Amino acid sequence: MAKVELLGQIDVSIAGCEYPIIVSLGALNDPAFLRQMVPAEQVLIVTNERVAPLYLKAVQIAFSDIQCDVVILADGEEHKNQQSLFAIYDALIQNRHHRDTAVIALGGGVIGDMAGFAASTYQRGVRLIQIPTTLLSQVDAAIGGKTAINHRLGKNLIGSFYQPDRILIDVNTLITLPEREFKSGLAEIIKYGLLSGDEFLEKLQEILARGISATSAELPELIARCCQIKVSYVCADEKELGVRALLNLGHTFAHALETYTEYKYWLHGEAVAIGLYCASILSHKMGLIEASVIKLVERMLDDAGLPHKIPSFINLVLLYDLMKLDKKIKNNCLRFVVIKALGECYLDNAVTEKNVYQTLIAAVEGEFKNE
Amino acid sequence: MAKVELLGQIDVSIAGCEYPIIVSLGALNDPAFLRQMVPAEQVLIVTNERVAPLYLKAVQIAFSDIQCDVVILADGEEHKNQQSLFAIYDALIQNRHHRDTAVIALGGGVIGDMAGFAASTYQRGVRLIQIPTTLLSQVDAAIGGKTAINHRLGKNLIGSFYQPDRILIDVNTLITLPEREFKSGLAEIIKYGLLSGDEFLEKLQEILARGISATSAELPELIARCCQIKVSYVCADEKELGVRALLNLGHTFAHALETYTEYKYWLHGEAVAIGLYCASILSHKMGLIEASVIKLVERMLDDAGLPHKIPSFINLVLLYDLMKLDKKIKNNCLRFVVIKALGECYLDNAVTEKNVYQTLIAAVEGEFKNE
Repeated sequence: MAKVELLGQIDVSIAGCEYPIIVSLGALNDPAFLRQMVPAEQVLIVTNERVAPLYLKAVQIAFSDIQCDVVILADGEEHKNQQSLFAIYDALIQNRHHRDTAVIALGGGVIGDMAGFAASTYQRGVRLIQIPTTLLSQVDAAIGGKTAINHRLGKNLIGSFYQPDRILIDVNTLITLPEREFKSGLAEIIKYGLLSGDEFLEKLQEILARGISATSAELPELIARCCQIKVSYVCADEKELGVRALLNLGHTFAHALETYTEYKYWLHGEAVAIGLYCASILSHKMGLIEASVIKLVERMLDDAGLPHKIPSFINLVLLYDLMKLDKKIKNNCLRFVVIKALGECYLDNAVTEKNVYQTLIAAVEGEFKNE
Repeated sequence: MAKVELLGQIDVSIAGCEYPIIVSLGALNDPAFLRQMVPAEQVLIVTNERVAPLYLKAVQIAFSDIQCDVVILADGEEHKNQQSLFAIYDALIQNRHHRDTAVIALGGGVIGDMAGFAASTYQRGVRLIQIPTTLLSQVDAAIGGKTAINHRLGKNLIGSFYQPDRILIDVNTLITLPEREFKSGLAEIIKYGLLSGDEFLEKLQEILARGISATSAELPELIARCCQIKVSYVCADEKELGVRALLNLGHTFAHALETYTEYKYWLHGEAVAIGLYCASILSHKMGLIEASVIKLVERMLDDAGLPHKIPSFINLVLLYDLMKLDKKIKNNCLRFVVIKALGECYLDNAVTEKNVYQTLIAAVEGEFKNE
């Protein structure tokens, strides 16, 4: 077994908890390191049928000296539901896990969200270790303590705020990640670019234009930088009463698109890509930004191999109706994160129905096409 | 409509939240008072099929000026499960409740636990108002922010710590409470007596010996005193890392008895009554207290019309096995709250299997019978 190479550590301090995000190459191939990361006497590994054949064994070996149970769930956002959640509870209860157990989430955002919710509510809260194995979960989903399952009528409607004991990133896991999943993760990175503006956005544009893959030398640093950006928002506002809401740039559109297609048509990042395009159009329709910003967004998404247009099979009236279930609604008003300038976004309460429909129509037609 | 009579207010300060417990006569008959207690634009009332015919209308009238939805669940501990929980989520989602909604728990401990868990997890947390309508929930279940549902294999295994916005007690609701339910509430009051010792215990013995009912003049003060006792434990230790665990006196036995009989044979307080008797026997077997304390406990339970013996149909080996699922387990050791003296309990890590079996056998036989 090889020894882990530690690339960086981001310390999170939130709601009285302190924990590290550890960015590494090869953590999953170093059982002694893994074991030392989780000082427990029982663990439950929650993973899915796609990740299990790749990485489950490595984690099991690390915990072979203690009670180590496993629950393997079906893969995909459409399984982030009540049935999967209760399969985790059943595994915990049937194997008699106690309050001092640790739940290890080994997988992407879906696994992290569900295992996190189960850990936050089993016996009113047990320890949680996040080992994100997708780009999207390494830069976004695993960080910040949002856990949830979906409901037939809406995404992430049932959940909790619950911080993990630690987050352990092994960038090597991305080598086995399907290309489509890798690209999906780039959508959230592009979101960070738009939120941050300045050098990070410039560097990101260059990286995307050149092309990036799981073996690119710049990837670990990019991941660590995204972790830092997310942590800065989350630590300032755990419960999303203020600035954290900006991380939802593009997500009101994205969640409705995902719900519309029952989480089956797009990966989350693909829906976010379209959502970012919509958010930029909306911001333009509201007179906040030039059309050139829309084109910039479109180019970055294109370079990343991501979609941006709303496909024509989507009924926009039904889509808008689904947006009204968004969690950011206040006093019956939809609230959208809009772009005032690159690096400067805000949550707008004054978006009209007309603004939204104009945006959706333009996003179907792709009228701001890059020439 | 009559005007509410306010009898007392206990201020709770816990985990950065402050909220009042309001003890009243007639709050449910004063719609203006009720309305003013819940400054929301949407509410969901969660109640059950027994409470609804009695008090639902009164609450609905108070909220007739805003969106007021209702979910009526089946009555009983055996319905404190996944199905009922998701019926609450469905009502919230189908009626498009937003983050600023308020969930009103109108009923006993079962309703409070489920509505509380739903409120704590719907959209990662919405406001919760507890209106407990049973003696047990007024003195115990509604207070302290523990929410939960049961699992087939154990009680309260899935839940959260979540503080309500306020707790509104209308002692008049106890007039319609079935006698068996009223007695069940007395079990938790007897528990407070054993935890507190001194004058409170003495006064309680007198009250129980004389007999107490829903219309007794001393009842409101007794309820307020119990709220204060519970609050003092809870505020010192929200997450039950220390002193709060003492509130579980008798409950390791009680939960196993309830699980054994699938929550169908006893009311919670009845199981607690037997649990208190067991805890006193255990404390005696461990050489902590004289047999006279067991007899005192038995007499109080008798005076309250509560059971104390474990019935002979219970298989003690299976019962003990269920106790091993208790949430207080640490390092694979069962931990019991034991009585060192009246008013002085502690959590003991050194209870042997033999101690427990001797206790269970003695509790079946009732060998410390009052002469």
